[in-house]
Parts: sequence; structure tokens; C-alpha cells
Amino acid sequence: MEFSEHIKTANVEDVVLRQPLHPPSRGALCVTGHHLLFSVREEEGGSSRQVLLLLRNIDATEKRVSGSSGTITIKCKDVRVLQLDIPGMEQCLNIAHSIETLSCLDSVSEMYPFFYRPADLSLQDPWGLSSPEKHYSQMKELHDRWRLSTVNQGYSVCPTYPPAVIVPKEINDDMLLKVAKFRQRGRFPVLCYYHRKNGMVIMRSSQPLTGANRKRCREDELLLQVVIDNSDKGYIIDTRSSQQAQQARMMGGGFESKSCYTGWKRLHRQMERGKALQESLIKLVEACGDGSHNMDRWLSKLENSKWLSHVQTALATAGLLAECVERDGHSVLVHGSEGTDSTLLISTLAQLIMDPSCRTLEGFLTLLEREWVQAGHPFQQRCAHSAFSHSRLQQESPLFLLLLDCVWQLWRQFPLALGFSEALLLRLATEAYASNYGTFLCNSDQERCSLEVKEKTHCLFQALLRPKEREHYSNPLYECTELAIWPSVHPQSLQLWRGFFLRWTQQTRHLEEAQEEIRNMVIEWGKVVLS
Amino acid sequence: MEFSEHIKTANVEDVVLRQPLHPPSRGALCVTGHHLLFSVREEEGGSSRQVLLLLRNIDATEKRVSGSSGTITIKCKDVRVLQLDIPGMEQCLNIAHSIETLSCLDSVSEMYPFFYRPADLSLQDPWGLSSPEKHYSQMKELHDRWRLSTVNQGYSVCPTYPPAVIVPKEINDDMLLKVAKFRQRGRFPVLCYYHRKNGMVIMRSSQPLTGANRKRCREDELLLQVVIDNSDKGYIIDTRSSQQAQQARMMGGGFESKSCYTGWKRLHRQMERGKALQESLIKLVEACGDGSHNMDRWLSKLENSKWLSHVQTALATAGLLAECVERDGHSVLVHGSEGTDSTLLISTLAQLIMDPSCRTLEGFLTLLEREWVQAGHPFQQRCAHSAFSHSRLQQESPLFLLLLDCVWQLWRQFPLALGFSEALLLRLATEAYASNYGTFLCNSDQERCSLEVKEKTHCLFQALLRPKEREHYSNPLYECTELAIWPSVHPQSLQLWRGFFLRWTQQTRHLEEAQEEIRNMVIEWGKVVLS
Repeated sequence: MEFSEHIKTANVEDVVLRQPLHPPSRGALCVTGHHLLFSVREEEGGSSRQVLLLLRNIDATEKRVSGSSGTITIKCKDVRVLQLDIPGMEQCLNIAHSIETLSCLDSVSEMYPFFYRPADLSLQDPWGLSSPEKHYSQMKELHDRWRLSTVNQGYSVCPTYPPAVIVPKEINDDMLLKVAKFRQRGRFPVLCYYHRKNGMVIMRSSQPLTGANRKRCREDELLLQVVIDNSDKGYIIDTRSSQQAQQARMMGGGFESKSCYTGWKRLHRQMERGKALQESLIKLVEACGDGSHNMDRWLSKLENSKWLSHVQTALATAGLLAECVERDGHSVLVHGSEGTDSTLLISTLAQLIMDPSCRTLEGFLTLLEREWVQAGHPFQQRCAHSAFSHSRLQQESPLFLLLLDCVWQLWRQFPLALGFSEALLLRLATEAYASNYGTFLCNSDQERCSLEVKEKTHCLFQALLRPKEREHYSNPLYECTELAIWPSVHPQSLQLWRGFFLRWTQQTRHLEEAQEEIRNMVIEWGKVVLS
Repeated sequence: MEFSEHIKTANVEDVVLRQPLHPPSRGALCVTGHHLLFSVREEEGGSSRQVLLLLRNIDATEKRVSGSSGTITIKCKDVRVLQLDIPGMEQCLNIAHSIETLSCLDSVSEMYPFFYRPADLSLQDPWGLSSPEKHYSQMKELHDRWRLSTVNQGYSVCPTYPPAVIVPKEINDDMLLKVAKFRQRGRFPVLCYYHRKNGMVIMRSSQPLTGANRKRCREDELLLQVVIDNSDKGYIIDTRSSQQAQQARMMGGGFESKSCYTGWKRLHRQMERGKALQESLIKLVEACGDGSHNMDRWLSKLENSKWLSHVQTALATAGLLAECVERDGHSVLVHGSEGTDSTLLISTLAQLIMDPSCRTLEGFLTLLEREWVQAGHPFQQRCAHSAFSHSRLQQESPLFLLLLDCVWQLWRQFPLALGFSEALLLRLATEAYASNYGTFLCNSDQERCSLEVKEKTHCLFQALLRPKEREHYSNPLYECTELAIWPSVHPQSLQLWRGFFLRWTQQTRHLEEAQEEIRNMVIEWGKVVLS
């Protein structure tokens, strides 16, 4: 496809850009295949300023034409809202059409990461921060009981798993094939975390396909059995209510019955995902954009969105998981239905709670790479639209944004314990929806492989670790602690993540100045200590 | 009175103290005339720990006796809740009786500030930070148009004003006597702030006593007239609704009619005070203490308390006042009915918004001394009880706490612009209700004078400025700015002051560590720069 066929008007002069907290500015607008570029007219400010917006970041547009000019309101996936006043009705309609078409192209290989070629990055640079092989090799202590299986080479067993996974040594690849058939979409139980302090592990999977007839799979039962061989029991945390799990049997899914999986105790914790979570985000963003000065209405709308309830549930369930492992000393298997959403959410949060090595900047990015990118969270489906889209929502759901919000709550409750800054969480929230980088493209490793994402795009996580970025995204107050950081999940302890949800409508300049001040002090102080 | 007659049991062993976030501890309880002293038994912790509580800080107690022991729940004015398990029914009842009696003694001269004699303070130390005389002498620019009047020497004209006040030069003391008769409780208009940038002023007073017959007072009209002689107009901000001001006439009060006060434009902004505000605090504290894990219920209760609406109204009205003075360049008179509550609230906030010299630690304390202590806020009546008391409330109202909350909102929105720390605001919130110092005793300068408070007690503001305290109560990130700091009063911009309202129930240790870390860095960095 040629992008140019969607661009009837590429350049318009005398456009007025309106943004909250900024005075309107007049300048030239340019539409390219992937961007909107607005250049503020030079006379006005002395230095010329540009606003560059990825078309992919645009969630919805609204156009209003009156007389000989028109206005396009642009609502972005990162919850920013812009407005363009464009002279000339035809020009306005042309621009609106280009934005609408180009902002939601379906073909991944036409997206901007395949065209982004900055001078300071090379496609030969390493891609990604770790791999299942490296992860396995770093955990020598578990090599006598766990092995690295390449049964999924070529993604033939589980399309949404990476080619190599960590499984119990007693279970050979033939057995794994049978287990995979018994688990939804082939997502058989794999190890995702090893707790050094007591040797317990976290595994994740999808639901077992027991169905209405209570089908069994000896290999599946054996796999779980060998995990708890030398301890008294294990826990299964099912991220659905007990009723939901029962109902899933009617659709061919199910759960691990007590009689077949002796030694395993099931705990049900209902977590919202899918449509309910998406609607919660839509309501929250609508509330945040409400310009009325009514305090009661704001608090009602905030409550009504239920977003903070979802944050609370996620942190509470992750806390439960961490308690099972760290306090009670048991291994845990986590799953809901598919094991690609709430499962990843709570396994990630539990690792942050327990494991100091996940709390550094590098450790956190590695954790995201392993537990979200490699583990098959369907970013493309979940992040196709954000809070503004009018199009019928399909698979959209802000699971990753909910994760970042939960991490922010941890960060706020433990301001010294995490090695990264709020700026990193904000950056990741934006990048997941629209990016110059290939990291969050596609829905699985397999898809990324077939599109040669790792060969043809740059890696976000690598870019974030370059010296200048690393400085910006580090927490200047960070002090490593070996202790678990148990979040408070009292309603009174959880706050709206203003940094994200009110980012474009609130004056955050002064808060940023304070952060910058602290950062500078640490750097200067570091220089003095070193000199 | 002898305190000892109220103490039948002075010492009890084997008492268990329970506090949120702390494990229960066992030790000895001692009741004195002014304190509860709990000493943790030494064996347990190594170093012996003590909890010392001013009886005056206790707002309400609840006792529960069962069998041979009893439990006393102690609810403090600083919203802390403690519980004591006491062996021996009689002992428990005796202790409860002592607490109930001694915590609400009416006689000011028997309160602890008259007994507090720390080794490092002397009663010969200066008392207070400033005086009307000093305030006047610092503003040379206004000496040609304003004078210092001692008409109130001996508190004969206005019992709630200090002996010296600043008034227009054209108005002599005889005229002031007539104006005082025309204003409720003699609170005639006085200058409280001079805006150097444009020469405009803020005055405050109580309502004029126009009554149902629309009485006039030529001297009152003249006083206001001369203030705006060289400008086109002035504003009167009335902290009541227009309807409330009308109704006040039936009770002998009233407002400045347009026809009699030409050149003055009245703006009405309804602010809650008295009972409505006290009930709001009670509801908020009840919500904060709710231990349920229901997120929706918490947000509903927070909304229902309306506390944040009061914060919003106060900041918005102060913003309006500052806009009149700084942006529009007009002088303003503020009053509601008595001029001792919401009037002081908004004049204080407006000065913080506009005047950088009020934003230093010393400047802020001086502002509070002038606008609250000297200006006659009835601390004793307003702070007799806080959020827990079961006794019939009389004159209680948390105006000063609302001020501190509003200042905290400013502090949060402008983290570099204020020279003091959140710890100072927390300390002041506690001291206003129960204190070792005499600063917040009594309802007026006159009462303090007759009880010789300045001779027989120590001054809190002086104590807070000693080197060690000064360090603790300073903002390490402070950078003086000459600009006005305009607060955002959007509902989304205002937050619950968790530091105060959730102080005893939430883990704030980590946040305090972060503050401490920043403080240490600044201090170390300062040493390096100086060396």
C-alpha cells in the first residue's frame, strides 16, 4: 500500500493548535504516512517549536465544519486531547480522512517501527534484554529439579509461548505435548519465578480443558504432583470466581478438581478483564476530562468507574500470591482462563513484591519482557484502542495499563525501594499503545518472529537503558532492600494515578521541577563523593 | 483545684497498649494531672520505650469492662486512636474517670502550658515573632496613607483585636470609636496586608450592623472611601451568600449597600463554618477510620463528608481575593459575620498566594501569629473538641485545620515554593488542639493578657525556630519565587491530606524515609558547598 493514496492534502498553513494548559498557537500542519507534524510559526516564539504526533497514537477524531473552515478534535491513546482549527472545508475533511484511515492500519509491517531509523541506533544492536535460556542459566539452584525444554521450537505446541520454557525435570517433552493438549491454547504450566529464599516457585498456565465431562490428563496431574513432591502442598490461584470456573466447564474449560490434584489447594479470586476493564477505563478517563468544578460529581464519577477497585483487587491478589510463596512457603500455579492477562498481571506484581532483583530499572524491564512480551500478552489486540474510540471494541482491554498503575501504587508506597521513576511508567504506558519501537508489536513471539520484528525494528527496552535515558528513568532515591515490599490495599491507601490520568490537563510542571531538583542533587552529590 | 483529687489510681502495672500498625505492647501506665504515661516493660525491647500523651489531646474515651479487667479506647484530637487493656475493673474505672475529668478541664490557667518548664527554654525568652508595631514599621511605603492606632489600648474598643492596629491616616481615633460601634463585636476594618507591587491592600472586619432599618454610619463609609481615594474602586468579599447577608439584617447584622458605599463592589462567596464544618470533619474522620476493604464505600464516604468541597471553596475564594489585588489591582475588604473565622482563612491563604515573604518558615509562622492569634480567632472555643467527642458541640469548628489542609494543597501543588515542610503543618494541627505551649490558648489577645500567658508559658512559634526544629520543619527543596502561586481548584487537583487524616492508620514510614533522605542530601550537599 502507498500511504500517499490516503493523503489528499499533505500541508496546510495557518492552522491553530489548541491544547489544555497552553495558549493556542498558529502554524503549519503536515500529514505524513505515520505522523502529524505541527510547526509553530517562527515569528511568534523566536525559536520554532514542533509538535510531532504518531498517527497510531490517535484513538478517535471528531470533526466539525462550519462555513469555510473546520475543527478536528484529536483524542489520543495516551489520553491527551488536541484540537486543530483548519482553514478550508475541503482541506479539513481531507486531513480528517487521512488521520482516520492512517491511524488504524491493520497491517503490522506497515507500522512506524518498521520505518523508524534514528541515527544513534543500529538494527544490528542486540534485541531484548534476556531470553528463557539466560533466565534458566541464572538460576543454578533449580537445575537439579527443573529443565529448559525446547518442545515449543517453531511454536508448534503453544503459539503464544517462547520457543524455550522451564518445566519440571521429571516431565519429558512427550508428556508436555499431552499436557499442552489439555490446557487452553496449549499454555501448559511453566515456571516463571524461583524464590531463592525457600526454593518455592510460581508457575503459570491457562485453564485445564476438563469440560462438562470432567476429563482428566494424567500427565497434567503428574506435572503438578512433582512440583510439590518435597513439600506438603501447593496453591492454585484461579483469577476467576468459583462460579465462573464452574461455568467455564460448559464451554470446554474448567479447573483442577481437588480429587485429581491432591496436595493442591485452589483459591479463587475474581479479577475483571476484557470488556469490564475497558469500560472502567473509559469511564475513568471521561471523569478525568470533566471540566466542571463540582467536587461531589468528580468523586462520584471516580467511584463509578471502579478503576481503583480493579487496582485494589490486582494488588490484593498479587499480595496473596506473594504470601503463599514468601510467608507460607508454598509453590503456586496461577491461571484464569487463557492465562495471558490477569495471570500475568498478578505474577508480575508478586515478583516485584518479593524479589529485589526485579526492582531495578533493568530488572523491571527484564521482568516485563519475560512476563508480558515473551509470555504472550496480546498487546496488539488489547491496545488497539484506548479510552476514546467510537469503533466497536473487540479484544481491547487495559491490562498492561492496570499493571503500570499497580506498580505506581507500589512506587508511591515504597519511594526508596524501586529503582525506576514514575517517568518510566508513563513512557511505557504511552509506548504500549503507539511506539517508534517494535517491542509491543504483535500478540506473541511467533507473530513477531514471522514478521521479523527483531530484525527490522528497534528494541524499546534496549533504548531505555542508554546512559541518558537511564538517568532520566532511574529513581534518584533508590536504595536496594532485600525485604519484600507488602503493599497496603486499604481503600484509603490507594490513589488515582494523577501522573497518567491527569497528565495533560493538570499543571504538573512544578512537581516535575521538584523531581528534577532531587535528581540534580543526587548527581552532584555523587560527583562529590567520587572526586 | 488539686489534680490529685481526680486521680484515685495513679499507677497500673501489666497494661497492654494497642495501636494501629504496632504490635501490642505490655507495660506500666501512669496518670498525672496532665499526662498519660505508658512505659513499655524493659525485658521486651531492650531499650525501654515510653508513650506520653497529653490528656488535653484526648477527645473521647470509651470503656468496656468484662469480668476482672477492662478496656479503655482513647480517641485523640489529632485523630489517633489507642486502646488500653487494664487488669482490675476498679482500676480501669478509676483511670477512665481520671481521663474523662482531667482531659476537659475548663480553667485555662490549670492547663499544661502553665506547668511546662523544659530545661532549654526560659520564661524570659522573647514571646511571639512580631507585633502590630513591627509589622507597621516594616511597611514604610504605606506610612503616608496609613497610621498605627492605639485606640484599642486596654482592649476597650474591640476585645478581640490587639492593642494596636493599622488604619487609614484620615480616620482619627474618635471616628474609629464610632466605626467600631457600627461593626459586630467592635471589629472595625483594619489593614492586614499591603501589596508592594501595586500599593493595594487587604483589610478585614466583621459585618456592619445595618439591621432591618438599614442604619448607616458616616465614619464607616468614610473609612472605606479614603482607602480607594486614588483608585477607581474596591471590592468587598463577603464570605456569606447574598441571601445569608440579607437574612443577617434581621438579626441586627448586615452588609455594605451599594448606595452608601459607592466605589465598592460586593462579591458574595458562601463559605461553611461552625456546625456544618465540624460535621464535615466528623464524617471525614469516620470515613478514614473505616476498616472495611470496600473501595466504593470509601469514595462514597469521602464525597459525603464534603470536606474536600470546603477545601475547594476556601482556595477558590482566596484565589478570587488574590486576583482582585494582584491581577486587577484593587484593594479588598473581607468579612463574613464575625470576621474571626472564614475571613481569616481566606486572607491568610491570599497572602500565601501573593507574597513570597509569607512563604518562608518564619514568614508563615509570623503570618499565622498575626492573622489567627492576634486577629482573634477563638482557638479555645473552636478547638475544644475534634472529630470524636460525644459531648454536645458548642462553638467547635475546624477552621484552623481547614487552613492547614489548604496550605498543604498549595504545598503539594508548588513543592519548591514554600519554605516549610509537611511536618510543620502536622505539628501545628496537633498543637492547636493540645499543646505544651501557650500560643494557641484562649480566644483573644485580651484573654491571654489577663491570664499572663506571655509571662507564664512558652511560645510555640519561637520554639519551632530553634536550630534543630528549624531544620526539621524546613522544606529542603525550597527555592524562593517572587511570583504568585495560583492554586488549581479543579476537583481533580485537590487531594485528601493523607499525611494528617491517615497519619496513624497508614504506613507512612517509607514516605518519611524518603523525605529524610532528601533532607540529608541537601544538608550534606550544603556542607560541601560551604567547605
